[in-house]
Amino acid sequence: MPMRWRDGGWVTGEAPPSPEELPVAIVIDGMSQAVLMASPHDLQDFATGFALTEGMIADPADVTGFETAEVSAGGMPGIEARLWLRPGLSVRLVERKRSMIGPVGCGLCGVDSIEAALPEIVPVSSDLTLAPTEIGRAMEALSQGQILRRATPAIHGAGFWDGERALVREDVGRHNALDKLAGAMARQGIDGTQGAIVMSSRLSVDLVQKAARIGAPILIGASAPTELALLWAEAAGITLIARARGQDFDLFTHPERIAAELRN
Amino acid sequence: MPMRWRDGGWVTGEAPPSPEELPVAIVIDGMSQAVLMASPHDLQDFATGFALTEGMIADPADVTGFETAEVSAGGMPGIEARLWLRPGLSVRLVERKRSMIGPVGCGLCGVDSIEAALPEIVPVSSDLTLAPTEIGRAMEALSQGQILRRATPAIHGAGFWDGERALVREDVGRHNALDKLAGAMARQGIDGTQGAIVMSSRLSVDLVQKAARIGAPILIGASAPTELALLWAEAAGITLIARARGQDFDLFTHPERIAAELRN
Repeated sequence: MPMRWRDGGWVTGEAPPSPEELPVAIVIDGMSQAVLMASPHDLQDFATGFALTEGMIADPADVTGFETAEVSAGGMPGIEARLWLRPGLSVRLVERKRSMIGPVGCGLCGVDSIEAALPEIVPVSSDLTLAPTEIGRAMEALSQGQILRRATPAIHGAGFWDGERALVREDVGRHNALDKLAGAMARQGIDGTQGAIVMSSRLSVDLVQKAARIGAPILIGASAPTELALLWAEAAGITLIARARGQDFDLFTHPERIAAELRN
Repeated sequence: MPMRWRDGGWVTGEAPPSPEELPVAIVIDGMSQAVLMASPHDLQDFATGFALTEGMIADPADVTGFETAEVSAGGMPGIEARLWLRPGLSVRLVERKRSMIGPVGCGLCGVDSIEAALPEIVPVSSDLTLAPTEIGRAMEALSQGQILRRATPAIHGAGFWDGERALVREDVGRHNALDKLAGAMARQGIDGTQGAIVMSSRLSVDLVQKAARIGAPILIGASAPTELALLWAEAAGITLIARARGQDFDLFTHPERIAAELRN
């Protein structure tokens, strides 16, 4: 428990618990693909979602096994999240690795160059629309689903709003929260084109890229978008909504999906 | 400009600008070391600080040249931040690369394993103390120095408080903000052991690791620490202070540096 300084003096009393955070290695067929600092929950969703949104697998049915293992380094704890794929598929990963060997080769979750950081844009395809009043409902559903956050406030949430409820995953990292959501959706057979992704965070370009991989046509965030996120959302056909607070929001790209009389 | 939905209807009016974010490749002696999504400001500080806190160089005097180059990939913009080192030094980087080649090899800014994500802890050495009332002053100085944030709120700040003022750097990523600060301090010859690092963000373990590389004995954050950050701060001899808001704060590790009658 911390010592708490309030109004000019030390006070006693409970402090909120600190969120867990551990290095999690995503290991596919015995090969470490990435190490991410993450909240150690929903690790099968996380590993599956990471493999999907990073293009390492195309289908959750490619995964035939999953296990976790606790490891430690220098007295500090870590976790390996191990996926096993159908025979033959990991050849592609070896090739992917091999292409990274040489003078250029690391960073951004295994991204070795600016070209790899900005992969080809495949536009989403969906005729989904949402009424403006649904944005606030989606945010409220995200908030309701953020169980971990109630105990430890500094945790992000990613939700998938289907018009009635939100499937929610949480993590100290917003990218991880979205990867966990992607994995949970894939494992439950949820079609990403039929709903909106709701994030508790700002919207950076990597979140737009992951949303596009999920196929979601609408991406909603509680905080601001970056310039590059807007460029990417425009090109990927994604309706980007940011600063969603209470019932209010700012609508940036592809406004046609927000079904209402748009301007007077 | 976005369309804004307020109180149940579309309104007109200016929205805050979106923060810039671009993929920045850190290139040392022609070899790409990492690609990070970052705010494209203070790039020489950023590249120098990244190289220092990631252990790629030991001294800013190792850097003999710097340049930036605009690049693009698929119509999307990016920047290369290129450092040139004294002759012979980049051999070490080639070796570092080589050690990453093989079945294990990517993620977390070039980290290939949990061992590499949790490198050896070298405790900080400093007899600096701060009065509790200085914490609020340090946070206020950080806030004053966050110039970019005034225009675009979703930007993090990292400051170095020397007891009188704060040197501040900003970025959409909190790790990048701290790397920029590390680079600015190194380039200006500021001794990291003689002040406190102040962050606008939560405190994750990687920030504690970077603070230890800088040599700073006190790390202050506006939001919560993670559990692993606390473990690491304890082991690295760093006084970790979190939830610093106004004059209030929570003191977690190595309380002896906060000079005051600690408990009644």
